[in-house]
Amino acid sequence: MEKVAIIGVGQSEFGELWDKGFREIVLKAGIEAIEDAGLEGKEIEAMYIGNMSGGRYLAQEHISALIADYSGLAELGTPSTRIEGADASGGLALRQAYLAVASGIHDIVIAAGAEKVTDVASEMTTDIMASSADREWEGFVGATIPALFALMAKLHFERYGTTSEDLAMVSVKNHKNGVLNPKAQFRREIRVEDVLNSPLVAEPLHLLDCAPLSDGASAVILANEKIAREYTDNPVFIRACTQASDYLAVQNRRDITTMESVRKASSLAYRMAKISPEDVDVVEIHDSFTIAEIMAYEDLGFVEKGKGAELIREGITELTGPLPVNPSGGLKACGHAIGATGIRQAVEITLQLRGMAGKRQVDCETGLSLNIGGTGATAVVTVYGVR
Amino acid sequence: MEKVAIIGVGQSEFGELWDKGFREIVLKAGIEAIEDAGLEGKEIEAMYIGNMSGGRYLAQEHISALIADYSGLAELGTPSTRIEGADASGGLALRQAYLAVASGIHDIVIAAGAEKVTDVASEMTTDIMASSADREWEGFVGATIPALFALMAKLHFERYGTTSEDLAMVSVKNHKNGVLNPKAQFRREIRVEDVLNSPLVAEPLHLLDCAPLSDGASAVILANEKIAREYTDNPVFIRACTQASDYLAVQNRRDITTMESVRKASSLAYRMAKISPEDVDVVEIHDSFTIAEIMAYEDLGFVEKGKGAELIREGITELTGPLPVNPSGGLKACGHAIGATGIRQAVEITLQLRGMAGKRQVDCETGLSLNIGGTGATAVVTVYGVR
Repeated sequence: MEKVAIIGVGQSEFGELWDKGFREIVLKAGIEAIEDAGLEGKEIEAMYIGNMSGGRYLAQEHISALIADYSGLAELGTPSTRIEGADASGGLALRQAYLAVASGIHDIVIAAGAEKVTDVASEMTTDIMASSADREWEGFVGATIPALFALMAKLHFERYGTTSEDLAMVSVKNHKNGVLNPKAQFRREIRVEDVLNSPLVAEPLHLLDCAPLSDGASAVILANEKIAREYTDNPVFIRACTQASDYLAVQNRRDITTMESVRKASSLAYRMAKISPEDVDVVEIHDSFTIAEIMAYEDLGFVEKGKGAELIREGITELTGPLPVNPSGGLKACGHAIGATGIRQAVEITLQLRGMAGKRQVDCETGLSLNIGGTGATAVVTVYGVR
Repeated sequence: MEKVAIIGVGQSEFGELWDKGFREIVLKAGIEAIEDAGLEGKEIEAMYIGNMSGGRYLAQEHISALIADYSGLAELGTPSTRIEGADASGGLALRQAYLAVASGIHDIVIAAGAEKVTDVASEMTTDIMASSADREWEGFVGATIPALFALMAKLHFERYGTTSEDLAMVSVKNHKNGVLNPKAQFRREIRVEDVLNSPLVAEPLHLLDCAPLSDGASAVILANEKIAREYTDNPVFIRACTQASDYLAVQNRRDITTMESVRKASSLAYRMAKISPEDVDVVEIHDSFTIAEIMAYEDLGFVEKGKGAELIREGITELTGPLPVNPSGGLKACGHAIGATGIRQAVEITLQLRGMAGKRQVDCETGLSLNIGGTGATAVVTVYGVR
């Protein structure tokens, strides 16, 4: 396997971008990444695009071809491939791009993620997101994604003593970090009581336990290590990028407080990167719901099962703590542009490892990101290092 | 690059499968392929799933996870990835699976394609298929996929003298072949006058110039050559699997009678397989519309630009001719189960090269398949050989 470096990153702002079209936000992220890498479009040998539901959000499938066309790379015939795995689409696109370079098939590829959610009525959005769960066994009986995470939260509360206050603290932390990120959707602090007093979406999850659904795009350029230094003085290396599955329908899982996909993908990633969880300095976690961040602390091996809440209670995962999680603001505050999120996480970790994360910079040499699809049937774990 | 063999193939019947669900037809194809290869599910290291529009046909995205769940492979955590590129989704999934084995990352993977189109009202289907073209520049002004191919046909008629009778002969040939394929959707012969007397869909294309949209699934199991003979005595090798892009919006193309994606992907495939077009013995072409098959004859290099119709007039591409095209019946008669088609083509070529194609068997050692997305913005060309 060849060693793979991230040589360029780009991100549109995340949010309700009423005045911008899908094509515009994708191009913004792509051009930013290309300029950051200092290369020309024609040097890109392949494109991998993460997008969850262009079909329903935009009445547009074949998003890969749309982007090849709009970016001008169709003129060269550059292969462009859309990858979909609900809100893990970005992470999956990153992984296919990583494999394309790691295998030696390509030297320079772009992985991008994008979603435009505000072009449909907001009441449709919940149904579209429910299509990331099992339509026949979950959706048809009324289970939405918040409802399914609420079930996980209730059992976690019951079995391990996790509380609504613990969940609220995750959201408070991520909002605090988001203030420091110029591209974040929500740049204001909130308090624990704001979360607890916000409306219940699916008990025990309040509105402020839930990440927004956002418009946005993100892109990273990957290159074979052998040529990476021709483009950048501070390459960030992907030391592992792994993927695992769990049952789609939550009812089929042995233990709904565990995301087996996250356990399997992270164990493999640590083994491939030859590190242990203690070696990780900075993390981006898929906090689509606050309980997902708590469960991920456990399933990523940062703490034993059931003790996830301790990390937030003790300030371990604060920006100033020993294991900063979601310095970007996470999905909750930076925004969750669905298919863009997995790549957006890679952008943040890259900026952190380069020492270019501005006011939210933490001290780090090894980073990790976790991107999950829906309620965790798909997980992608990526480990990054400065060497 | 490792050499990659197809060691198992499976296909559901194609058609209007009112009494079967999506999960059922996918499992049928998958199990058939696994049994054909004589392996156990747990030996499969990764799954690549081609599906165009689960989001709109089934209100279900995250199809990859659904199939991992339903096949039981989620228990093992097996990575499962959905690939989408309109009706080239199957070909793209095949290509990612091929790259996963060719690169040495995996030893055994499955590539499957599936679509269930009859669960929505048929008037929605045209709009869903139009989402494979450019929604803003084509769909919003009323251009459907048949309308766009009709434009190509009209210019081809005008410039090269191709006629409606020529197109009709493509359909007649493919129906004739379909009679011999037990899994084909339409197993009856038609005459040139049947095509010409069928209603116009988009002038000059008649109803019988257009492939149906079908329910169906297909699967192939790929293995590293080093272990392929442990499973099969007659492996079929993938000698190249290439992909190229063209502009999504037909208006952006230099010449709408040429699919640049097909030219680029096939040139590269011939170079990688170290063959020339004359070495090809049997072909599966994406005849979503009869004009697409004629244009593909040219863009694949079997005849020079503008002379595609000669191949059908002279019987060259008949089952008994020197270059049999679409022995399966093609999309027109075998059926077009959108995301399944690219894999279904690989199934047919595999059966032909194994000498197991029954009454439609042709004499062959080298095969080729062409799968395109929409009006050809994405093309995947695969070259197969008995060694």
